[in-house]
Amino acid sequence: MKNKYDTLAVNTLRVLSASMITKAKSGHPGICLGSAPIVHVLFTEFLNNYSGNSKWPGRDRFVLSAGHGSALLYALLHVSGFDLNMEDLMAFRQKGSRTPGHPEYGHTAGVEVTTGPLGQGLATAVGFAMAEKNLASRYNKPDATLFDYKTYVLCGDGDLQEGLAMEACSLAGNFKLDNLVVLFDSNDIQLDGPTYKATSDNIKLKFEAMNWSYLKVEDGNDLVAISKAIAKANSLDKPTIIEIKTIIGYGASNQGTSAVHGKPLTAEQLEELKVNLDYHYPEFTVPSEVYDLYAQTFGKRSKASYDKYQDTLQYYKEKYPNEYNELTILLNNNYQAKDIDLPIYDSPISTRKVTGQVLSKLAEYYPGLVAGSADLASSCMIKGIAGDFAYDNYAGRNVCYGVREHAMASIVNGLTLSGLKGVGSGFFVFSDYLKDSIRLGAIMHIPSLFIFSHDSVCVGEDGPTHEPVEQLAGLRAMPNLNVVRPADAKEATWAVLGAMHNNTYPTVITTSRQDLPVLAETNYLGFIKGAYICFEPKTEPTHIIISCGSDLNICLQAAKELEAEGVMTRVVSMPSEFIFRMQTEEYKELVLPHKITKRLAVEMGSTQPWYRYASNVLGIDDFGQSMPIKQIYEFYGFTTSHIKELIEKM
Amino acid sequence: MKNKYDTLAVNTLRVLSASMITKAKSGHPGICLGSAPIVHVLFTEFLNNYSGNSKWPGRDRFVLSAGHGSALLYALLHVSGFDLNMEDLMAFRQKGSRTPGHPEYGHTAGVEVTTGPLGQGLATAVGFAMAEKNLASRYNKPDATLFDYKTYVLCGDGDLQEGLAMEACSLAGNFKLDNLVVLFDSNDIQLDGPTYKATSDNIKLKFEAMNWSYLKVEDGNDLVAISKAIAKANSLDKPTIIEIKTIIGYGASNQGTSAVHGKPLTAEQLEELKVNLDYHYPEFTVPSEVYDLYAQTFGKRSKASYDKYQDTLQYYKEKYPNEYNELTILLNNNYQAKDIDLPIYDSPISTRKVTGQVLSKLAEYYPGLVAGSADLASSCMIKGIAGDFAYDNYAGRNVCYGVREHAMASIVNGLTLSGLKGVGSGFFVFSDYLKDSIRLGAIMHIPSLFIFSHDSVCVGEDGPTHEPVEQLAGLRAMPNLNVVRPADAKEATWAVLGAMHNNTYPTVITTSRQDLPVLAETNYLGFIKGAYICFEPKTEPTHIIISCGSDLNICLQAAKELEAEGVMTRVVSMPSEFIFRMQTEEYKELVLPHKITKRLAVEMGSTQPWYRYASNVLGIDDFGQSMPIKQIYEFYGFTTSHIKELIEKM
Repeated sequence: MKNKYDTLAVNTLRVLSASMITKAKSGHPGICLGSAPIVHVLFTEFLNNYSGNSKWPGRDRFVLSAGHGSALLYALLHVSGFDLNMEDLMAFRQKGSRTPGHPEYGHTAGVEVTTGPLGQGLATAVGFAMAEKNLASRYNKPDATLFDYKTYVLCGDGDLQEGLAMEACSLAGNFKLDNLVVLFDSNDIQLDGPTYKATSDNIKLKFEAMNWSYLKVEDGNDLVAISKAIAKANSLDKPTIIEIKTIIGYGASNQGTSAVHGKPLTAEQLEELKVNLDYHYPEFTVPSEVYDLYAQTFGKRSKASYDKYQDTLQYYKEKYPNEYNELTILLNNNYQAKDIDLPIYDSPISTRKVTGQVLSKLAEYYPGLVAGSADLASSCMIKGIAGDFAYDNYAGRNVCYGVREHAMASIVNGLTLSGLKGVGSGFFVFSDYLKDSIRLGAIMHIPSLFIFSHDSVCVGEDGPTHEPVEQLAGLRAMPNLNVVRPADAKEATWAVLGAMHNNTYPTVITTSRQDLPVLAETNYLGFIKGAYICFEPKTEPTHIIISCGSDLNICLQAAKELEAEGVMTRVVSMPSEFIFRMQTEEYKELVLPHKITKRLAVEMGSTQPWYRYASNVLGIDDFGQSMPIKQIYEFYGFTTSHIKELIEKM
Repeated sequence: MKNKYDTLAVNTLRVLSASMITKAKSGHPGICLGSAPIVHVLFTEFLNNYSGNSKWPGRDRFVLSAGHGSALLYALLHVSGFDLNMEDLMAFRQKGSRTPGHPEYGHTAGVEVTTGPLGQGLATAVGFAMAEKNLASRYNKPDATLFDYKTYVLCGDGDLQEGLAMEACSLAGNFKLDNLVVLFDSNDIQLDGPTYKATSDNIKLKFEAMNWSYLKVEDGNDLVAISKAIAKANSLDKPTIIEIKTIIGYGASNQGTSAVHGKPLTAEQLEELKVNLDYHYPEFTVPSEVYDLYAQTFGKRSKASYDKYQDTLQYYKEKYPNEYNELTILLNNNYQAKDIDLPIYDSPISTRKVTGQVLSKLAEYYPGLVAGSADLASSCMIKGIAGDFAYDNYAGRNVCYGVREHAMASIVNGLTLSGLKGVGSGFFVFSDYLKDSIRLGAIMHIPSLFIFSHDSVCVGEDGPTHEPVEQLAGLRAMPNLNVVRPADAKEATWAVLGAMHNNTYPTVITTSRQDLPVLAETNYLGFIKGAYICFEPKTEPTHIIISCGSDLNICLQAAKELEAEGVMTRVVSMPSEFIFRMQTEEYKELVLPHKITKRLAVEMGSTQPWYRYASNVLGIDDFGQSMPIKQIYEFYGFTTSHIKELIEKM
């Protein structure tokens, strides 16, 4: 033990977090009591993360992948001097507090990523570690090291059971991310009982098989052993997992049982805990020795590290002004590029090709852009530049994720949280594999970008398993997510550009497999409002067709023919309902006037999202079938004549 | 080599599948050419699956997890005598054919599971192997072995990168499923290039760490070595993976490259293939020696195996009539249990508790029921009977999946496909992790059951990561899935019962964390129609409120108060939109008459699904927040007074 107050500090974290949980009548004491020594050693001896500026790019990252241990994290951030006072801790899990049930990025200083759904924190942390390697490789200079940070993760048994985590760890090993250290709180207990019921993996072998180093600490209360192991991990040339054997709920009368996992201690159990820990301080106080210890260790070291970074940055700014400017723009996602030489399209082309070409071009102007695909780059056409990200090319801005959709999406979040612009891609139907990661991006209000091709049953021959139907409905229902389904090369170009210039929500762009004509009617000023009138008949319309994506074209044709036949039909292109819903009521009324009730929505997907706007919907509420694309339009009735018929029948 | 026509047969499979793909101008020749020897050895030497009855319960299962190799599977089924003729093969990937783009269960004889999304086949196969262990343990007798089948899986690199597969394999190892053999087509090439870009896992170590046996075949064209390895695998007491080194696209001029993975051979390349393979038969013919070989090996052995099973079954029927009857009912999901002593509820109770209690009771009557949870049994209250499924208790009908939602759902499908009634459970928000598996169940038309608790922001303190919002919209949009959100203990009971008695679609039941009153107004005859009038005012209604789940109660209160105030408001309970949409137009009009346009839908979730039925929706289109439940109703406006206000404003 390096300081005589270490044990006091550990027990302070334990009692404080257990008290928060008991007061809230809600929370997970088990991990807090068991893991307190681990995070204590990490913060007092290793982590550099200045509390005066919890956003500086050079800081070490700490990720609580086992997000249900939030009380421990908040207690730790409090004693470490972050912006969380005792009142905040006492308001744990209460309405509007800064100490919500699970850690929320952007809500609480020092929280690097929103966690709770297991596996997510660990997978996102792999993104952090990749970002460090990429930025270090591109911006560090022999005489100026700006990026040299570590990512530390605290995870539990549940995290390591998640396939998501296994995908991410396999990538971390392949990329030799020696800047990643996972602290595995190994306590052999889960919510439903002992872990052996569900798991008998040999973690050492499993991680070594994935090209990790493995270390073990036999006693989770042995601060010196934990410290030695972390120091050792930091010296190894691979990602390292340290399995630390702990006792869940250590110190509580029901320690070592699943009962202490997620149930608050009673007032009586809390008193017993204090007795067992020989801890005698009033509730919701921290001994001054503990504050002092953290100030002298974590505080001092972090501040020094922060100051050094600032000095280096100043030197860098003067010596490498171009790189400095680029990096500043990159980290703030604050681009002014106006004269981008984007491709102009006039012949029919699939929107997957367009998004790919536009993205490649933009990558030259947007240094933060790091794209990748879950082994579908050649189909989705999405590829980053500067080569594949690899151990011998960390500067690469294209990531080969393999067939690991879920980890891809979490890593895209991790890249984006690190200041890069993460882009993931795949077939739209496989967005089902990674939805939860998009959701976390939406909860965190970060601008992750996903470009999914093959966005309808027009996939054709591959059949129902590869044909999205309900995915548009599901993602459009997600709060704070911009789902864009562009109708042609122009809208596809604008969709990618638009995704570059927001900082508050993720974007999903869905693209067509098949070629689509470039439409005279699509227009930018309308597009950026989410929906717009793209065809207006010569006299006042009596009908409206609303559509988007690959289906807009036939609607335009139908409306033109209807006009010739005397049925005045407006066509509204609605590439993004999310953006349209942000518009003024006046604009919405202009595009979709209440008085025009004869409305038909047309989309090759679930009808569900469209009843908000139209009483009649031509959609597909069944799974697709395997057949060549040329038969599909006819089979599902997505033809000009059928649309005309539906309008005329109203 | 055991037969001089083996090589001819392998090359027949190769040329036939490549020809199918070239003719269809779509498909994946790479795996077909590379893996033909593997499946040839499996079928001619090991697999027992009588083509005259491809559904007999004692058959070995073959799962093509790499579903993109469908052409190879169809060619194989054809030469093995299954109901696929040459015309079927020539109609590969064409509209309405029996040879769709990816293998579809229920569509093509001999296809055990719909595959295509990688990882799914392997994970479902773990369910097959678990089902065999369970059935064998419960129904085999010392003098009558009914269940003794193997499950063989052909998978590729992509399958093993999927976290889903890793979750399932970890479980398979924990359960020591020695009846599972995975044939790993290891060719070092993926769609986007060499596998090393994304993977450097040591597969041997990784699987051994998960308690598997690992075998290797160095040359994928060495039929004897493949045969020896499979024989060895069948003798080991663990699940076994056999890594078989193959050359993707073997025999094609572009073999060994990613170009041959998913692009049909040109007519010229197809000719080159034949030359390279020294194969000289007309297109779409099979040499009679090959038919003969399969008839003499696969056909003869399988028929003998089938006949033996039938003899045993006859003996079993006579000697063990009770077990025989139970098993017959089980395998046909054909229960007549009428006098089930179900709990009666009158005090407020959460629907999670009710579904748990009802399910436990039903398990006594429905021998096929095998339930389980992704480490949330104690929160979701769903637990099977007869103890935990384990190596020393394969008869256990509760499965501890650990925190592996995705594998759980695929295994539930596997159990259900095997004749059991698989039930999975967890928090509703984590349905995001497993959606694709539910989707495959829906595509396959199988009655998998998922019971998800904590179905709204009423989760409370756990906050946005644990609070579903858009999940109801997403799943309701899925074709052929019954989403049921019961309003009280009665509807919850009926929901579980209903899920027992269908064989054509999966069911998702979502339940409340909080207690709900037992409502006088809920009724069975209405419930089974998906939606029904559950409160009718004393005079003709001018307004309708549509609701379900935990939100129905306050709507009823509001309607009663409105009635007293002279606003006649009908309340419709809509536990299942899926079932309601199946009703006659007359019934729908009865419940929701067109003339009553003043309608309000009320649900604590996305508003999206409700605009089909109501122009006004009280829902939640934002993420939840961490706070105690008692503040939630007020915060989101789910109060009687607010609902009345919304009705009165119309």
